[in-house]
Amino acid sequence: MAYGPTQQAVPHLTTALTGPLLALEKRFLERETRIEQWFHERWLSTPAPFYASVDLRNAGFKLAPVDTNLFPAGFNNLNPAFHPLCVQALQAAVERLCPQAARILLVPENHTRNTFYWENIGALVMLLERAGYKVRVGSLLTGEAPLSWTLANGRVIPVTPIVRNGNRVGLPDFNPCLVLLNNDLSTGPPEILKDLGQPVMPPLSLGWWNRLKSDHFTQYRRLAVEFGEVNDIDPWLIDPVFRRCGRIDFQKREGEDCLAHNVDEVLRLVGEKYREYGITEEPFVIVKADAGTYGMGIMTVRHADEVRQLNRRQRNKMAVIKEGQTVQEVMVQEGVYTFETLGPGQAVAEPVVYMIDRFVVGGFYRVHGGRGRDENLNAPGMEFQSLAFAECCANPDGTQSPDAGPNRFYAYGVIARLALLAAARELQGTPGGQA
Amino acid sequence: MAYGPTQQAVPHLTTALTGPLLALEKRFLERETRIEQWFHERWLSTPAPFYASVDLRNAGFKLAPVDTNLFPAGFNNLNPAFHPLCVQALQAAVERLCPQAARILLVPENHTRNTFYWENIGALVMLLERAGYKVRVGSLLTGEAPLSWTLANGRVIPVTPIVRNGNRVGLPDFNPCLVLLNNDLSTGPPEILKDLGQPVMPPLSLGWWNRLKSDHFTQYRRLAVEFGEVNDIDPWLIDPVFRRCGRIDFQKREGEDCLAHNVDEVLRLVGEKYREYGITEEPFVIVKADAGTYGMGIMTVRHADEVRQLNRRQRNKMAVIKEGQTVQEVMVQEGVYTFETLGPGQAVAEPVVYMIDRFVVGGFYRVHGGRGRDENLNAPGMEFQSLAFAECCANPDGTQSPDAGPNRFYAYGVIARLALLAAARELQGTPGGQA
Repeated sequence: MAYGPTQQAVPHLTTALTGPLLALEKRFLERETRIEQWFHERWLSTPAPFYASVDLRNAGFKLAPVDTNLFPAGFNNLNPAFHPLCVQALQAAVERLCPQAARILLVPENHTRNTFYWENIGALVMLLERAGYKVRVGSLLTGEAPLSWTLANGRVIPVTPIVRNGNRVGLPDFNPCLVLLNNDLSTGPPEILKDLGQPVMPPLSLGWWNRLKSDHFTQYRRLAVEFGEVNDIDPWLIDPVFRRCGRIDFQKREGEDCLAHNVDEVLRLVGEKYREYGITEEPFVIVKADAGTYGMGIMTVRHADEVRQLNRRQRNKMAVIKEGQTVQEVMVQEGVYTFETLGPGQAVAEPVVYMIDRFVVGGFYRVHGGRGRDENLNAPGMEFQSLAFAECCANPDGTQSPDAGPNRFYAYGVIARLALLAAARELQGTPGGQA
Repeated sequence: MAYGPTQQAVPHLTTALTGPLLALEKRFLERETRIEQWFHERWLSTPAPFYASVDLRNAGFKLAPVDTNLFPAGFNNLNPAFHPLCVQALQAAVERLCPQAARILLVPENHTRNTFYWENIGALVMLLERAGYKVRVGSLLTGEAPLSWTLANGRVIPVTPIVRNGNRVGLPDFNPCLVLLNNDLSTGPPEILKDLGQPVMPPLSLGWWNRLKSDHFTQYRRLAVEFGEVNDIDPWLIDPVFRRCGRIDFQKREGEDCLAHNVDEVLRLVGEKYREYGITEEPFVIVKADAGTYGMGIMTVRHADEVRQLNRRQRNKMAVIKEGQTVQEVMVQEGVYTFETLGPGQAVAEPVVYMIDRFVVGGFYRVHGGRGRDENLNAPGMEFQSLAFAECCANPDGTQSPDAGPNRFYAYGVIARLALLAAARELQGTPGGQA
């Protein structure tokens, strides 16, 4: 089972319960002009983050975001046919923030051995160059020697440790106009990037050291209600129920009661909604680190008892996430089934939508042969593949059925932009957050 | 012979003399990043016009613009696959000029019976709506009754005469934030649009009443030299030689000597270049009204004597252009053969590239079965067809040959943007011309 980026496959939606989703797609199509006006008005008062990717889950009866990444990797997975959209959007984003910018310093993640990640950095460099900028890659590993990565296409990307000079950073032979972060700052804002005279995008305050998923989904919940009222849509159809827990220590087994209580509560609320819509699936929840990323610190739970009966291995898995950070706060989120499957093996697929500035620029399906329709698919491995969207999510076609490719992708683009707007509202509340 | 907009055909280049053009395409590909940086720097100091279309001619040995329209029609001829590029670019253009704009008044041409033209207006309305704006169409025919046009897709576009209220214009029930002209103002700036409190784009001063093709090509010539020096390209390979004549009255036969002299001069210069490059074709020139549009007031000339021997019909044809305007000034421009042909009948084709703001957003081939490779193809009629570009002109592919589809289209996009930059420099010199 292999899916090339140029294939036109759209996953099959394997559910009898397509009624509500079809209704949603139909509503978006009918109201396209007013939806675009609604977004347009909101971007004027709440500028979009520099870029983002949003993980969606499509349950047939429900379409909702489950994670929003403000330092997205995976640009190498987008359909090359839509690179011009990325290039236009990058120009718009950079010029809004820094009109005279000519030289950009791109700061990657510190774990330097993931080939896929470096293909992502290579794609960002190429797109920024096409947009007319001079680009260099500058590493936060200031104590280490310069190195080079060779991309699949043969291009060599030099990675040079950043140097600081007064209130500016750069490379020994490169004085950038702005610093573009593709490092989510899980361990905190790096000293070398603090109080710079150069603009830093996204701002340091949007790093995971300072951001909580639950803040994001609180903003998203408000938007889902607002959007639902304007468009006569039950917000639950686009919004996963969630609760947050206070301090948790998985290894010391502190905070378990609160977690079990919240799991119970979310399962009950989702069960009510399932009954209301005649959905016979079993509700489930996802327990995840509130500040986590990389698909680490995540588990699927079907009953409150499960969180009291974790074994040592499960506890350890939940307790520590990227770069050894300890999980301290936890979010309990309604699990949304993915009913999109692909290929003869019925591998489950979840859409990931990419945005630059306020523009949807493409996306891809995470396709996972070894995972279930109720599991997190952000788990790279032998059975993980990415399948570029055949459409750009911004080109609905009213002459086709609401579930036709361009229209399903348009629905993805609408929901992903709602999540982007939620991130923009988070951003508005943070220092240096006008970016 | 029928060409649908979704067909992937790229016209065949029927010439043995592809050496220099291939060299040009190869050079553009090799220097893509630096070319994009060069454009980027120039747009910072010289903002692009709101929109434009550029007619190109591809002679195999030469690729050059022959006309630049700052009030482009034909948006209906673009490939729908690239509508998202148009939408992004429209947002960038409007927001740069008028960040808070929500409502746009689109002002069409006054000749209201051309079905193709109204499909263009319909396409612009649709694209602006997708960009999130409320759009209405307001006519300059203020003495006439409102009317409606029904598009091929069934949508009805109401066209309402504009009303003025103090220093604002609008419709009785529509108060626009800005006025978008798709009317080239051949007869002069309309009183009702003068000294408005609302922004007007493009500015009135860019109408054909005030603009000369020769000014445009003077700017273009300087740019071709500059671009040629930076990229080591003989500017003649991208720039048609031209001369302008002073006052001409075709009907009174005044100014004929000057015209004949200039025809001679241009033919001589082109002949020298043809010999330098070993081109055995016969040089020809195009004589055209310096302020003309709509493909009117244009003739192909192979010898200076021809302009002294015009018969009454030819004189009349040259003397009057759009909306009865008299031709007073004339430009003599090197004729560039079009060696692109399409279909079994070898219909000649010329590329037309569309830009919004500084972004190339697509284009189409004018395909004409009844015209020669040395004739103006901007002559709609039974044998005229348009064929949407299969590519968006902004997605070169270094892994394919320099003449492969994406790369030929990229070359079109480079030359078209040089013409756009020439128009931006014209604009900089005109009142209200920061748009």
